[in-house]
Amino acid sequence: VTGTAAGPGSRLLVVGSGLIGTSVALAAGAAGWQVWIDDIDADRLRVATTVGAGRSWQPSREPVDLAVVAAPPSITGEVTAGLIQSGLASTVTHVCSIQTPPRCYLETIAVPTARFLGSHPIAGRERSGPHHASADLFRERPWIVCPAADTDQDSLAVVERLAADCGGLVTRMPEAEHDALLARLSHVPQLVASALAGSLTGLAVGDVALAGSGLRDTSRLADSDPTLWTEIVEGNRSAVAAALRGVLDPLVELLDALEAGSEGAAGQVRALLEAGRAGRSLLGGKHGSVAVRWATVSVVVPDSPGKLARLLADAASCGVNVEDIRVDHAPGQPVGMVELDVRPDGRQTLQHALDGHGWTVTSSPAPAP
Amino acid sequence: VTGTAAGPGSRLLVVGSGLIGTSVALAAGAAGWQVWIDDIDADRLRVATTVGAGRSWQPSREPVDLAVVAAPPSITGEVTAGLIQSGLASTVTHVCSIQTPPRCYLETIAVPTARFLGSHPIAGRERSGPHHASADLFRERPWIVCPAADTDQDSLAVVERLAADCGGLVTRMPEAEHDALLARLSHVPQLVASALAGSLTGLAVGDVALAGSGLRDTSRLADSDPTLWTEIVEGNRSAVAAALRGVLDPLVELLDALEAGSEGAAGQVRALLEAGRAGRSLLGGKHGSVAVRWATVSVVVPDSPGKLARLLADAASCGVNVEDIRVDHAPGQPVGMVELDVRPDGRQTLQHALDGHGWTVTSSPAPAP
Repeated sequence: VTGTAAGPGSRLLVVGSGLIGTSVALAAGAAGWQVWIDDIDADRLRVATTVGAGRSWQPSREPVDLAVVAAPPSITGEVTAGLIQSGLASTVTHVCSIQTPPRCYLETIAVPTARFLGSHPIAGRERSGPHHASADLFRERPWIVCPAADTDQDSLAVVERLAADCGGLVTRMPEAEHDALLARLSHVPQLVASALAGSLTGLAVGDVALAGSGLRDTSRLADSDPTLWTEIVEGNRSAVAAALRGVLDPLVELLDALEAGSEGAAGQVRALLEAGRAGRSLLGGKHGSVAVRWATVSVVVPDSPGKLARLLADAASCGVNVEDIRVDHAPGQPVGMVELDVRPDGRQTLQHALDGHGWTVTSSPAPAP
Repeated sequence: VTGTAAGPGSRLLVVGSGLIGTSVALAAGAAGWQVWIDDIDADRLRVATTVGAGRSWQPSREPVDLAVVAAPPSITGEVTAGLIQSGLASTVTHVCSIQTPPRCYLETIAVPTARFLGSHPIAGRERSGPHHASADLFRERPWIVCPAADTDQDSLAVVERLAADCGGLVTRMPEAEHDALLARLSHVPQLVASALAGSLTGLAVGDVALAGSGLRDTSRLADSDPTLWTEIVEGNRSAVAAALRGVLDPLVELLDALEAGSEGAAGQVRALLEAGRAGRSLLGGKHGSVAVRWATVSVVVPDSPGKLARLLADAASCGVNVEDIRVDHAPGQPVGMVELDVRPDGRQTLQHALDGHGWTVTSSPAPAP
């Protein structure tokens, strides 16, 4: 079975048993694919097969319909080339965060690319390794596929089938466009978050504890893996540089104005803040629509087992859907504020219901857009 | 009643009925203070008194024990000076995000400062106005008070009593130290988040929708009020400049290396990421301790009323406390992933309990610190 008919029952080889590879194997297996998995690291491979990510690959096997390379960016091109040359897979794809370098590698060593195309599931977190893998990692997430002009249509179909069977939302995009976009949406935010968190070193823990939740959110990405990110930035140098310049230029100009005591600094701060609000309005809210402004109901919740559950049960009793929830623990104390986001027209109903159940509640109407 | 005896029954005047001033009035009133509130904006003042933030101030009244100036940074010094000169309050404080400029103003016009000191509750969000106010806004939050060498001890006591009665966690700090610290913990993160979000303008909504949750977190602060932040940055120019330089220098060096195609760029990316992880480890986790690494249990939750409540009720049934919760909506689809953070030793119990209740569950052990 190859090409458009691929799917449940088809044969899949996943090369690389990290977080992404193992999750692809788990998800495809759950969707009915026959899955083999391979890794040069025998220990990691054993973890992957133990959590159910398919059978360990033996090179003597019959060819598979699709091979997925889930290796670090720095060796994705090489591993992909080896698979194409081996003839062990009808189609070869990868799931690398950068798309241009693997194809450049294939073209440089003149490997045929008609039955190859890259892809990129937008998933994964500040974690790694097969023990963090999940069959649901890609569920309802974007999965970008990057066909080229010479890509075989059957190969495109089998890769898109895998992505869909893993629960992903398939979007096609040329490789260069992918790399430029991800530099802006992912690679530069990573660098900025790391620089911001890095600037805290040297402060006392007690002083840093005075930070509000804003700093925690803004720096969360800084927990990411340095090795992986070094390879991603290295592999996407020019696009990252262009995107980084777009973020740094206004900040450097502002810094110059602040240091010079320039009269224009205030105007620059305001312009920066206004641009930020305009950019945020593009960031989709729930369900990919333009951001909805929810009304927020804030509740004081003691830190003891079951309290969050009771809160949400009380909220559910009035029929208002909780669209989002944030738990904000205060430094030093066993009490947290929980913020429940609801549609603006459900705010009063929820507030009254929670009041009636004895919760300490405050709320805010939806802010103006 | 003045000085150390201040507290419930004492007389408080709040000048300014925005988010912070109205919240101070509500919190102090709930703690038993007699509260008056004033504002040059009659409409805003009416909202504040309507939500229960005390009585509207009449200048003919007897003096109060404490006046709190909750005005925009640009006029805090002037309003504070007027109150001190009027003799209407035994002690005057403010709740401004910057501490040095108001005192400079008082010293410049030679107003006596013995019964004045600034303070700063670390609270407030990407919202403003009295309709967002809450008596719980300061609960379990840091509230920095900034006495100077000449500060009267009774004045210090009454300000700290107000902060404690509002639920705040009182920390003393010299003004200059406050302004330098907040530049790093708050003002520069704001500018960086705004610059990052601002760099998205020009992208199509559909392209921005491909962003992962990392960009949403990193840019959330960019929703903040441009006018307020322009005044904060203006008022804290030199500290903001120094802190901004600390964040920008490594990024500018990296940008130069990337644009020059320098061999050293990879090492710079790695150093930036490593520094970011070190900085993040300083950011207190729950209860102000050094960050705890929770184990995360991820659950697929359909988007319908009551589902979150049922999930947390099922979680509570096994006695494991949910320490934190994140709801991650996927673009385009009515299903979300909910991540529950629990102590590592509670992970398996929770996972089995949720499995048993029919939830689609995946989990990860705590990552290495």
